[in-house]
Amino acid sequence: MNLYSIAVIPGDGIGIEVVPAAIQVLDTVAEIHGGIRFDWTHFPWGCEYYLQHGTMMPQDGIDTLKSFDQIFLGAVGMPGLVPDHVSLSGLLLKIRRELEQTINVRPAKLLHGMKSPLAAPQDFDILVVRENSEGEYAEVGGRVHRNGEEMAIQSAVFTRKASERAMRYAFTLAAKRRGHVTSATKSNGIAYSMPFWDDVFRAVSQSYPDIQTASNHIDALAAFFVMKPHLLDVVVASNLFGDILTDLGGAIMGSIGIAPAANLNVERTYPSMFEPVHGSAPDIAGKGIANPLGQIWTSKLMLDFLGHEDLGEIVLGAMEDTLVDNVKTADLGGTSNLKEVTERVIEHVKLRAEKGVSITN
Amino acid sequence: MNLYSIAVIPGDGIGIEVVPAAIQVLDTVAEIHGGIRFDWTHFPWGCEYYLQHGTMMPQDGIDTLKSFDQIFLGAVGMPGLVPDHVSLSGLLLKIRRELEQTINVRPAKLLHGMKSPLAAPQDFDILVVRENSEGEYAEVGGRVHRNGEEMAIQSAVFTRKASERAMRYAFTLAAKRRGHVTSATKSNGIAYSMPFWDDVFRAVSQSYPDIQTASNHIDALAAFFVMKPHLLDVVVASNLFGDILTDLGGAIMGSIGIAPAANLNVERTYPSMFEPVHGSAPDIAGKGIANPLGQIWTSKLMLDFLGHEDLGEIVLGAMEDTLVDNVKTADLGGTSNLKEVTERVIEHVKLRAEKGVSITN
Ligand SMILES: CC(C)[C@H](C(=O)O)[C@@H](O)C(=O)O
Ligand SMILES: CC(C)[C@H](C(=O)O)[C@@H](O)C(=O)O
Repeated sequence: MNLYSIAVIPGDGIGIEVVPAAIQVLDTVAEIHGGIRFDWTHFPWGCEYYLQHGTMMPQDGIDTLKSFDQIFLGAVGMPGLVPDHVSLSGLLLKIRRELEQTINVRPAKLLHGMKSPLAAPQDFDILVVRENSEGEYAEVGGRVHRNGEEMAIQSAVFTRKASERAMRYAFTLAAKRRGHVTSATKSNGIAYSMPFWDDVFRAVSQSYPDIQTASNHIDALAAFFVMKPHLLDVVVASNLFGDILTDLGGAIMGSIGIAPAANLNVERTYPSMFEPVHGSAPDIAGKGIANPLGQIWTSKLMLDFLGHEDLGEIVLGAMEDTLVDNVKTADLGGTSNLKEVTERVIEHVKLRAEKGVSITN
Repeated sequence: MNLYSIAVIPGDGIGIEVVPAAIQVLDTVAEIHGGIRFDWTHFPWGCEYYLQHGTMMPQDGIDTLKSFDQIFLGAVGMPGLVPDHVSLSGLLLKIRRELEQTINVRPAKLLHGMKSPLAAPQDFDILVVRENSEGEYAEVGGRVHRNGEEMAIQSAVFTRKASERAMRYAFTLAAKRRGHVTSATKSNGIAYSMPFWDDVFRAVSQSYPDIQTASNHIDALAAFFVMKPHLLDVVVASNLFGDILTDLGGAIMGSIGIAPAANLNVERTYPSMFEPVHGSAPDIAGKGIANPLGQIWTSKLMLDFLGHEDLGEIVLGAMEDTLVDNVKTADLGGTSNLKEVTERVIEHVKLRAEKGVSITN
């Protein structure tokens, strides 16, 4: 029996509702497999905790998390009550940084049963690998105010180490997929960071002679996501460019509300963190109408990273079956609630498993 | 008689073909108006010039340009023969900088007769005002290489003056349109430049109490361009964010090939420069099949800036009439050539003028 100890942080708003839904799905999958089990430990951290204790998590929160295999997060945020920068830097960004989750992976895939805002989308299946620790998000900069002139300086920091790590991971993923990596750059306009990024990309690609590569400027690449997303396989991007492209990816899938994300520590020195892209949506929280598919897709990414890609496929397939059944929450134009969607996904997980989908690892 | 002296730089590739087409349209418009005339002076600068002289334009090129009212540019670039950074920094970026064209304005509008890649686009009409002189494009940075560690630092520079100027221009335009300005930010991830940008935006918006404002993170805003572009009016953005959003704008219009751009010196101390967004497209150059609509739409932006907004409307209307007639070049799925499209636009300009569209200024 393989026991996975998972730290669960449901967070705020709809996070508290969709996390249990995804846990039900994962427990079902584990039961079907027979050889694995999840051990869930819940941490009530987030904005509620902040309002009571003045911090988003306890002082020893990070140390506590280190003892788990992975972290499964819902959504964090109480706009109006807790400033965004507090809730972000006190939990999400802190965990990403201190547990060295230096790579963020997000799929943009057209699921059966989803309605894309694109008129005639061919099947697309993109994986965006985003550098998650530095780049444009480096906290280096300041303001100058003198003689009535005022300016802000913001420095982006690109190390070869971090850029290369993200790129290598992208190539490794591409080797298991359609063998193509596109690098997002802007070396025609940004004079220092982007030519460096291009140099590293060229150097890394030497080690993967079987992988085809392309380098596209971010403006053209953003348009590409709208015009011909089916031609993209793996996309590797800096922190900011990855952020922009993954929201665009969510848009062309038909909803950012179903998009998942994996914050990976690929060296596995500390746990990785899996979280949906959507926020805590306080306006619809507590009503049982939130869409659990983002959190459920997130659980597929966790299964993948644990090495259970076949189980991950079953979960994603069951999501698609549910969408094709038109069992959808209101945000996707449906009339079902959270419970109905979750139950239908679980039914389809069981059906897919029964139909003899082989479960091997 | 109002005489406008225009410096014409056709540039390379299809620039040489589409610029005369747009000039024909502008001359027609001037004739119809009766009270204005264009005086065109051609400069054969660009990559061809570079291959002969080793520079993209003569030493005194910038000074020469200063004596004109405006600059009308085609496209510049000979990939393979002249490195991109040479052709860009030696002409386009040099003119933008030295003539203090600190604001870049680009429309994203769904034209009648265009096929958007969006499934059910409602009519959208966005104007992106992009800061064109600093921000992420500041040439500040370098590389560090020591003890086997290597990194690049890239600094973005945001002055209050330049940010404010772009924002004020955005508000001024919004006042003549639907009265709404959206600011592109990323202050939840980028710690110094973007909170500064937000502060300036808040301060500027105080002076325009009748204009509604919104501030959206660039990731969400990019998705917004795909999901509900009809809800946007004027968007103000930094150099990089404006670059990304305008290509996205081109994509949702159905083609980047028809998108125009205005590099404005809003203080009118030096000429402004009008150029289509598309490149020199050497693969189809010289065949008479290039699409002139980007250059023609560009001429509408020049008319607007010269204060002839009613003439600009006629040109844009004539473009739409031509598209509705299905007189389109191959890139838009049509079978017409450059000459046929241009002639049809001119016919429609005349028809619209005859139909008594009032021409007042
Ligand atoms: C060619 C490049 C430097 C330029 C820019 O980013 O400004 C182009 O993309 C544009 O938008 O005009
Ligand atoms: C909330 C914000 C800081 C964050 C980011 O930009 O990383 C979010 O947009 C994301 O993509 O997870």
